[in-house]
Formats: sequence, structure tokens, C-alpha cells
Amino acid sequence: MAKNDKKVAAITSMEEDFAKWYTDIVKKAELIEYTSVKGCMVIRPYGYAIWENIQQILDAMFKATGHENVCMPMFIPESLLQKEKDHVEGFAPEVAWVTHGGSEKLEERLCVRPTSETLFCEHYHNIIQSYRDLPKLYNQWVSVVRWEKTTRPFLRSREFLWQEGHTIHENAEQAREETIKMLNVYAEFCELFCAIPVVKGRKTESDKFAGAVDTYAIEALMHDGKALQAGTSHYFGDGFAKAFDITYTDKNNTVQYPHQTSWGMTTRMIGAVIMTHGDNNGLVLPPAIAPIQVVIIPVSQQKEGVLEKALELKELLEMNNIRVKLDDSDNTPGWKYSEYEMKGVPLRIEIGPRDIENNVCVAVKRTSREKSNITIDTNLPKNILVKLQEVVDELYKSAFENREKRSYPCKTTDEITSVLAEKGDGFIKAMWCGSEECEDKVKELTGVSSRCIPFEREEISDVCVCCGKPAKEMVYWGKAY
Amino acid sequence: MAKNDKKVAAITSMEEDFAKWYTDIVKKAELIEYTSVKGCMVIRPYGYAIWENIQQILDAMFKATGHENVCMPMFIPESLLQKEKDHVEGFAPEVAWVTHGGSEKLEERLCVRPTSETLFCEHYHNIIQSYRDLPKLYNQWVSVVRWEKTTRPFLRSREFLWQEGHTIHENAEQAREETIKMLNVYAEFCELFCAIPVVKGRKTESDKFAGAVDTYAIEALMHDGKALQAGTSHYFGDGFAKAFDITYTDKNNTVQYPHQTSWGMTTRMIGAVIMTHGDNNGLVLPPAIAPIQVVIIPVSQQKEGVLEKALELKELLEMNNIRVKLDDSDNTPGWKYSEYEMKGVPLRIEIGPRDIENNVCVAVKRTSREKSNITIDTNLPKNILVKLQEVVDELYKSAFENREKRSYPCKTTDEITSVLAEKGDGFIKAMWCGSEECEDKVKELTGVSSRCIPFEREEISDVCVCCGKPAKEMVYWGKAY
Repeated sequence: MAKNDKKVAAITSMEEDFAKWYTDIVKKAELIEYTSVKGCMVIRPYGYAIWENIQQILDAMFKATGHENVCMPMFIPESLLQKEKDHVEGFAPEVAWVTHGGSEKLEERLCVRPTSETLFCEHYHNIIQSYRDLPKLYNQWVSVVRWEKTTRPFLRSREFLWQEGHTIHENAEQAREETIKMLNVYAEFCELFCAIPVVKGRKTESDKFAGAVDTYAIEALMHDGKALQAGTSHYFGDGFAKAFDITYTDKNNTVQYPHQTSWGMTTRMIGAVIMTHGDNNGLVLPPAIAPIQVVIIPVSQQKEGVLEKALELKELLEMNNIRVKLDDSDNTPGWKYSEYEMKGVPLRIEIGPRDIENNVCVAVKRTSREKSNITIDTNLPKNILVKLQEVVDELYKSAFENREKRSYPCKTTDEITSVLAEKGDGFIKAMWCGSEECEDKVKELTGVSSRCIPFEREEISDVCVCCGKPAKEMVYWGKAY
Repeated sequence: MAKNDKKVAAITSMEEDFAKWYTDIVKKAELIEYTSVKGCMVIRPYGYAIWENIQQILDAMFKATGHENVCMPMFIPESLLQKEKDHVEGFAPEVAWVTHGGSEKLEERLCVRPTSETLFCEHYHNIIQSYRDLPKLYNQWVSVVRWEKTTRPFLRSREFLWQEGHTIHENAEQAREETIKMLNVYAEFCELFCAIPVVKGRKTESDKFAGAVDTYAIEALMHDGKALQAGTSHYFGDGFAKAFDITYTDKNNTVQYPHQTSWGMTTRMIGAVIMTHGDNNGLVLPPAIAPIQVVIIPVSQQKEGVLEKALELKELLEMNNIRVKLDDSDNTPGWKYSEYEMKGVPLRIEIGPRDIENNVCVAVKRTSREKSNITIDTNLPKNILVKLQEVVDELYKSAFENREKRSYPCKTTDEITSVLAEKGDGFIKAMWCGSEECEDKVKELTGVSSRCIPFEREEISDVCVCCGKPAKEMVYWGKAY
């Protein structure tokens, strides 16, 4: 049995071909595998474990903010989908239709849910009568289907996993508050747990969710300067309530329409993590979502006492709820280093005979590759947690610096064009008059589209970047995933 | 605002109409709500929380036995489904077919997975080369679709939630060991956590999973004497490997076919819990899967100090990881008692001014309704846990006694008929020659079908209950959900 019969093959460098670098990582880190179902993928154990960690953190945040999980059917009858006209216009062109059950043709065809507003609305209609039934703060963890033409693992696939929050409230104020609250939950999740800095903002009219009054999003900037929408939160007003005849009797015995929201985050987050933190050695995972937070690699493991000491370390870390793996396979340490760098394990611990003599182990961060000796004593778990926090901080700092370096205030479309030509893709910060015409023209002339109207407005100029008329909004523009 | 504006409506008694009693409970305990999607349901927060608890316990058991979670696509191309002939024959008549994506007709239609063997096989084919790649011990938590004609909440629905384990091994021995190991995990889960006694056994040839060499099941007996299959575990041999061209090179460099298993448990378990433990006051939940394990109901809550003390108790229990709810709404205590009995909360704590004077609270078990005073001190959480364990024990004992009382050894089909007529439905224990003809005839003559060939054989007689020829197997027969 050859020691290196399973090699960690090198990946395309991101400078050479960013798209290829990305797909190399998702394959080599064993996150996904392709299938014969076009546009759908297998999420492999290592990829799914990342998603489970994301789920666990988000689910706890949802429950801490009073939300309950439910489960709706995966099918939506065509007539139900059609009840809200903007919504059906937005989604009907891209749904999968079930037309037969067994050998029988269905009386009414069913679509596989692309999103579940219509099902939630039908349910609200059935269960809400009085103000005492409000609010309902629901969420579900499911997969949805959208019949995309071109697909890429995690970023755009015909089926993807997500959570969809759906809430219903007595009035606009409460629903609006919920919309922003959940946007903030998403931002906090991205920044604290995924070390991805995000811009919070509102979408322009043309970029809103089908059926929404307002759509809010968090936008992140990837390594290659392209923007990625990491989560959205929608305020629906009472449009769905009117379309689905959802009413309640208020405290004064008056019949009212309730106000709704929905918000979602998807397996796309895994793509965002790859393209924000990954490097030419592979994936780099923030510890909070890493399936393996620490990998222990014994050096000269055939020498007496090495494996025993490695196991002792493993147990010590496990007792402190650190997700740890000891790799005592017969691959060489060098092979193992490459393997776990590819898999993005945040911290590696090397331990060999000389370390044991000195009662230390060597910790190597995936980020800076900085090595340090850590004394093996009762403080070890605490010191490892410090190292893991350093990894998070380094990841965030580096992502933040990349974003700042690639954010360009521009005053004219010519300036946008020349900045992009000179410096490559990034966020363009520019003023806008608010007209859809100018929004379209900016895209046509420069290739960037509006990403969001940020909550933190900067005054780049007084006039629209396109028409020169007085500016109404400040907009982040970019090329989007 | 009337104090009792939301009444707990009475349910049909189980003696009067068991089926109606069942559907009354799933509605009144707010487990599910019907939808316009025929045969599909909304699982409401309280129902879904039960499923989340089931998931959490099972998932930990799966991981402790070395399994990893993955996620396969929900669609199966028709050609892929057809690769294993027994499998497609079993499932094709009951699948939902997707024929269109958006406005375009698909080149090949896709079924919504009724189960995922074919997808796992395609994946194994792609990722397995050497014995070093084996075993793969996979599981996924998803929903599946089977186009049933008649449906009942949790027991039989067109879409249902489940986990499906899929494993692949070097040889038959390892795969067979896995099959039985997971059957034992299911049995342990049912008995320890759901307080449902089960019979472990093998299915007859005619009742096997489509494509399996052997199917094993755990069978439970419901209140009404009908049998419910609570979990199945299948050994596939190398049939799927041959159909899907999955091979590996063994240690001697010989190409071999690996051997496979699959095993599943579904939201049916919630139906099993209802029909095993429920009574005419509603649901009764075993503490391990109860969303609320203890409900605290203040008595005379407007009196000074009552709500404060109730809150103190709540926090004390929460700190000890007991799932507790304090109901301080303005409904009457009597209304609340009914409400939480309907919802099956295992233990109720009542606390009023006189209790506080005596430094006690009153614990009332959902099972026996036995009341006891518990002193409010640091031992309280421990004493509450003891009470919860008593509830589990009482539930198991009562379910076990019901099953024993309703298990009838029979030597002839006439005896089966008269036992069923006299005593009602139950498990019939009878010998069988092993022929499908006799199996069919027993069903035709008596109405009971074979449930399983139990691992623990009893010698009811020497000869087949039907033909009188020498007996080969001892079989549990029954009417099945």
C-alpha cells in the first residue's frame, strides 16, 4: 500500500482562472459531486457538515428572536401560485411542473415550490381570526427549485437548500421592524460567524422580490471583486393578505388586513465563504462553521508515545467542545498538511517526539500559517480557542481590507468604466437620481448593476452618476453572482 | 376580552370512533393543518417541534454509529430510476412526475424521489474505486413523495419527512451487520425515547422493499389493536451494485461488487406515538420528544408573589435543561389544564399562594394524573426529572401490557377468525409453512397480513396455520396502518 496513493491534486490558481479555481475547490475539498440531474448536486458529508453548522447557528438565532419552525408541502397548485399577480409573474417562468401522479394525469398541475409565500398565505387564511393569533413568526428549513439555465455549485443551482422565514403581523410598523430585525440577524451571522463583512441596504424597485413592497439585502464582495447577495429580507405590506383574503379582528372589533414579511438565506453562503476566504491552497473556513476546527497531525507517529500524546490532546480538546480530528493514517505529514489546507481546517496542530520532550505542540494557523508552540497543560484548550479567534479576526480583517481596497467612489459613468478597466471588478459607489432608466443605462454603459441602496449613505456627489440630475440615492453597484 | 374565548373543544372518544379520535387529536393539539395540496399537510410548530426532537435523538444515534449526513437531489431522471428492475417496478406506479421546467418540456421526465437508492448508487459509482473508499455510511434528512390514493396525517401522506440511511460495504457480512445494527438503533429509539415496545423481525418475501434481498422491520401495536411498522432496514446484497456498475478493487487487487443497505424512519413515528399513548383527553407525549416537558400553571396568579415564584421555578428548571413553559395567560387554570392535557405535556406543575406558604409545588403526571407535592429547593429539578422518568415508565408499561393483552397465539385460521371476532384486532402469533399461497390465503380468510417473522420465535405449533404442512416460520400477523 503506497503511502501517497491518494494525492491532493493541485488546484488552478485564482489569478489564472477564478471560476475554475472555485469549482476545483468544491470538488477537491469534497464539498459536492455532480449528478446526472442537470443543475442539481450531491452535497457530500464535508459540505453538508458546513451547512449543518450554519443551520445550527442561524436556527438558534431565529429561536432566540421568537421564531418557530414549521413545514409546508413542497408542491403548490397552479391556482394557488397565481393568486398574487406580481408573485406569479416573477416565479412562474422558472418553476418545475408536476403533471402526473403515477400513471395518471393530474387535474391541476403542481409546481415544486420556488418559495413558499403562497402556501404560508393559505395557512394564515386558515388559522388567523383575531389579533390574539398575531404575530405568527415562522421559519422552515427546506429545499426549493428554480429552473435556472446556467448553474454553478452552491451559487446557482436548480435545487438549493435554504431557510425561509415567513411572518405576519398586526400592522405595517411591526412587519417593517421584523424585516429589518432579520436583516440584522443575517448581517450579524455573516460578520461574526462567517467573518464576511456585508453592506446592508435596500434593493431598487427593479430588483425587488416578486410581490414585495421593499426588499432588503446584505451584499458581500468576493475575492474577484464581484458582489454576492448573501441574504434578503422582504416587507410585503398587506398585498398578499388582500390577495389571499387573510383578515383579523382587532381589539376594537374591526376587521383588518395583517402585514407580512419573508426572509431567506441559502447554501449560497458556502459559496460566499469559499470566494471570500479561500486561497490557492484551497478552502479556508471560519471556525464557527468548520466541520473540523482543529486537525492534529502526529509527526514520526511510529515513535513511541507520539500517537498516545496526540490522542490525549484530542480528548482534551473534545472535552472542551472543540471539533477536532486526529489523522493517524499512514499518509505522510506533508500530504496531510496539504489535505487539511485544501479542506480549510482553521488550525493544525503538529506533534512529534521533540515537541513531546519539550511538553509543547505546534499550532499552525490556516490563514497566516504562523506557527507557535503551545504548552501542553490545562490551559491548552483555552489557548487553542484564542488561536481560533485569531483566525476569525484575520479572516475578517483581510476580507474587509479587500472590500475597502476594491470599493470605488465614482461621479460619472466614464469614471466607472475607467476604474473597472484599470483596477478590475469591485463595488462602485455612485449617486443615482432614482429613475429606472438611469439604472438600466449605467448597466448598459459600464456593466455594473445596482446592488443596494446602503443604510449608511455616503455623499459621493450631488448629482446622478448617469443623467446629472439631482441625486436621490447613493447606490452600491457591481457585477453580481 | 373573555377569559375563555378560545375553548379547548372536546374530542371524539377513541372507543366511539378511533379514526375520528386520531384526526381530532392531530388538529386540536395543533400538530397539523390541511392544505389545498391533496394528501399533503402543514406540520405546525408544535408538531414540527416533536419531529425536531425525534431528529435530534436519532441523528446523534446515527453519528455515534459512524454515519455522516449528505444531501441528494430531490429529482431522479426516469432512466436512472429504471436501472434496477425490481426497484422501478415497486416505485414507478406511485411517483410524481416533473415534465416541464418553466415553459419548456423536459427532454427526459424526472420523478420526485420516492426514496433515493438510485441517486446514492449513481454517487457511489462516481466516488468508489478502492476498498479504502469503503464503507460509506450515509444518511439524509429530507422529504419524499409517493402518490398515495388515500391519505391520513402522519400515517400516510403524499409527501412525508424521513431520514434515509444508505450504506455500502466491502462484503455481505459487513452489510448484513449494518442492517441489523440500524434495526436495533430504531428499536432502542422507540423503546427508550418513545416508550413504544416493538417486535423486531424480518419481512416475508412478498412484503420486502423493492430491490431488497431482506427487509427487516420493527412493528408496534396501537391502542386499537392495529399494527404499525415503525421503521425498516434493508439488506440489498450486490444487486444494486451490479445494476449501477459499482465496483471496487480489494486488497488483493481483484475487482469486486460492494454490498449495500438502506434504512428509514419517518414522521409516521408521530402517528405511532399518538396511537400508542394518547387518551380521550388528547395527546400524551414521552418526555424525550415533548416540545414542552413541564408546564407551570400559576393558580390565583393575580395574588402577590405567585407569578414571581412561578417564574423562579421556570428558570430553575430551564437551567437544568428541562423544556418548560410558564403559562401566565389570562385563561383560567382549568382551561389551561385541559389545553396542556390535549397537547400531551408529560408533567404539569401547579403553584398557588397556599403552596408557596408551604414551600411546595404540585406535580401532576399526564399519565396517571397522580398528584404529589414537591418541595421547592435545590433538589427540585432532580425530583422533576424523576417524575418525568415515571411518566416514561408508565407509558411503556401500559403500552406493553396493551400489546401483551392483545397478542393471540392461534393454531388455525378458524381460531384467528374467532379470536378477532371476540376480542378485536391485535397481533396474531401463528406458524407458517413459508409459502406465499398460504400467506395470501390467511389474509383472504381472516383479514390479517403477515407483519414480520420475529427474531424471538415462539413455538405456537408444529404446523402451518393455513395448510397444516410442517411449519417453517413463526409469524406475527395483524391489520396494518
